[in-house]
Amino acid sequence: METIYEKTATSPVNIAVIKYWGKRDTTLILPTNPSLSVTLSQDHLHSKTTIRASSDFEKTRLWLNGVEDVDIEKNKRLQNCLRETRRLRKEYEEKLRKDKGPDKVLPLSEYNLHICSENNFPTAAGLASSASGFACLVYTLSQLYELPISTTELSKIARQGSGSACRSLFGGFVAWEMGSKDDGSDSQAVQIAPRDHWPELEALICIVSDAKKGVSSTEGMQTTVNTSTLLQHRIEHVVPVRMKYMIDAIHERDFQKFAEITMQDSNQFHAVCLDTFPPIFYLNDVSRAIIRMITEYNSTNSEKKLKAAYTFDAGPNAVIYTTSENIPELINLIAKYFPGNDDVKNYFFDPFQLFVGKTIGEQPLPLGFNDQIIPVFPKGSVKQILHTKVGDGPKVVNHTIAN
Amino acid sequence: METIYEKTATSPVNIAVIKYWGKRDTTLILPTNPSLSVTLSQDHLHSKTTIRASSDFEKTRLWLNGVEDVDIEKNKRLQNCLRETRRLRKEYEEKLRKDKGPDKVLPLSEYNLHICSENNFPTAAGLASSASGFACLVYTLSQLYELPISTTELSKIARQGSGSACRSLFGGFVAWEMGSKDDGSDSQAVQIAPRDHWPELEALICIVSDAKKGVSSTEGMQTTVNTSTLLQHRIEHVVPVRMKYMIDAIHERDFQKFAEITMQDSNQFHAVCLDTFPPIFYLNDVSRAIIRMITEYNSTNSEKKLKAAYTFDAGPNAVIYTTSENIPELINLIAKYFPGNDDVKNYFFDPFQLFVGKTIGEQPLPLGFNDQIIPVFPKGSVKQILHTKVGDGPKVVNHTIAN
Repeated sequence: METIYEKTATSPVNIAVIKYWGKRDTTLILPTNPSLSVTLSQDHLHSKTTIRASSDFEKTRLWLNGVEDVDIEKNKRLQNCLRETRRLRKEYEEKLRKDKGPDKVLPLSEYNLHICSENNFPTAAGLASSASGFACLVYTLSQLYELPISTTELSKIARQGSGSACRSLFGGFVAWEMGSKDDGSDSQAVQIAPRDHWPELEALICIVSDAKKGVSSTEGMQTTVNTSTLLQHRIEHVVPVRMKYMIDAIHERDFQKFAEITMQDSNQFHAVCLDTFPPIFYLNDVSRAIIRMITEYNSTNSEKKLKAAYTFDAGPNAVIYTTSENIPELINLIAKYFPGNDDVKNYFFDPFQLFVGKTIGEQPLPLGFNDQIIPVFPKGSVKQILHTKVGDGPKVVNHTIAN
Repeated sequence: METIYEKTATSPVNIAVIKYWGKRDTTLILPTNPSLSVTLSQDHLHSKTTIRASSDFEKTRLWLNGVEDVDIEKNKRLQNCLRETRRLRKEYEEKLRKDKGPDKVLPLSEYNLHICSENNFPTAAGLASSASGFACLVYTLSQLYELPISTTELSKIARQGSGSACRSLFGGFVAWEMGSKDDGSDSQAVQIAPRDHWPELEALICIVSDAKKGVSSTEGMQTTVNTSTLLQHRIEHVVPVRMKYMIDAIHERDFQKFAEITMQDSNQFHAVCLDTFPPIFYLNDVSRAIIRMITEYNSTNSEKKLKAAYTFDAGPNAVIYTTSENIPELINLIAKYFPGNDDVKNYFFDPFQLFVGKTIGEQPLPLGFNDQIIPVFPKGSVKQILHTKVGDGPKVVNHTIAN
């Protein structure tokens, strides 16, 4: 009888508040600047990967969201992750053979794999699915192989699949230290604070409809490296200062500081995209109206305290970080100016039951909010609002659960 | 019988190819970086100012497009221009009195003025009407007062009305030298090349419809100075290099170089606007689609030569610089993707009779142009296409002409 060894794990999405944009080494995926992200709860968004190993498998195969990728030999980033985890497994097997004797060790490093990976959110939503996906692949492999290494060590392998995947290996607040070595051995993720460090911090994701798919981040960031005359200044003089401030802001749970740097760094990332030649655009008119709305929302606070912070990755979707008490007001604002199509439940699922018996978009606006600041957009301009919180890192799934 | 002294002059619009954004002195209007512009033909766009002086006028009055500005005492920029030209007139009168005797000199510097200023294009179109308007005011005054000063000297006064007005005092290609002195005495416009230096260079202006009026440039640029962490790098390291390249490009009539720097500098200006906090947006989805269209149009050239260059000021309107042979192709492209409302003549007037018997927007696309690069936009997204050329500086109008 054949024996199949199997592991399943899930991994989270992370959303950067100090942005990664530019590689100094495109093969090892070494960045031109450090970055910092918040890991989001897997209750709402996650990748899930099941990996089987068997001596009977004739080759290693990969299914993404149920569709086999028949060309995995050409997928260098995948091959990097498989090769590096296998190498560690092989070393571990050799050590075990010495310690326990040759017969007691399972030669998993020699078996082919069947890998099934899926996201519980549409890939097209532009929610950094490659980060959670590669983090999940590498984490599941490390569990299947029982690798005796730290999460930070593991992050260096995930980094070679997709740069920002290294940050999805931790929950809470995570920095990707850029490192300085040529071999990438010091370019790794570290946890700045765990999930429960700042329980009030929550996130709203606005999935923004976009007619045109922008330039891929892999391609776009290197065009920026090659053509922007502002990027080097950002890398050398702006990001290092912001990293320090942001780490302090998180340690001190200082939302004012956190929000200010988050918005400024999102703006600057899109500024260097625009300074690229030809220019790269990810924000559209809806994204820009969300920025105006949040700017106005923040100005309603009489003490000049920021209440919410927007950030945008390589696409038009907005992620809004805020603290718990502002969530109902913000959801209502978004729903007023960016109403969904008629399928209400698909537009806003209300996981925390904040609007029971109330209609979102029809509650009173915050006091002092200038309601002429932006127009009401056509239905479906924002397709979906997701309400989520800070979450944990990857987890092994012991039993098959419904996705 | 009362005697009225009167002068009428017209002044051109200028469109910068190296952008002015930021003041080091907001009263004297001294910029943080030099800039360079092309003066457009007054056949299509101009300001026209008539100034009368009379000892019988009880006060100085101003009409803008037929409506009196009853609060001109509070208009400091206007007062700066009136005061400085009057001061020069007074000096001149004193000199004349010495040379010719006191009775031969008209004391115009003591007379009140009636000033009528109008644009032959809508102010709301966002075509830098304050630049042509202040240039026209100062030029007309200099003619009325018969001031014995150079155009560059005069540009320092226009600069105190509206920074970029100093560049509208010359035709052709004009640099605004930023200067370094605190009193602004070396912050002035100089002509790089006259109108007929580069006869093939032409311009298309796309008037883009915009729901929301952006932040005024006066306010916006100082917010950028105060909050952008990229602007200083642009000022110190990027613009000086670009100024040299651009002056060379113009002298050599090198469209490749001219186009590249024009587009890059427009992009960077909008990048530092986006790096402002809160961010400033002038480009909208239509502006961005025009950029994509021009980028694709340039890529159709097999020799990788640039054929057209976009530039955007503090608004969504595109100005496209190109050489004569590409004009019909470009007008056709714009009309295909950004069709006008049904009033065809108002959409495109065809001053040079390039489309007699042909329908714009329905001619074949350039060979190799990917027609899926942008969608066809709703009618009226571009309200008007203006086709114009490089033009002369301000001119005195001897007879009253229909505007």
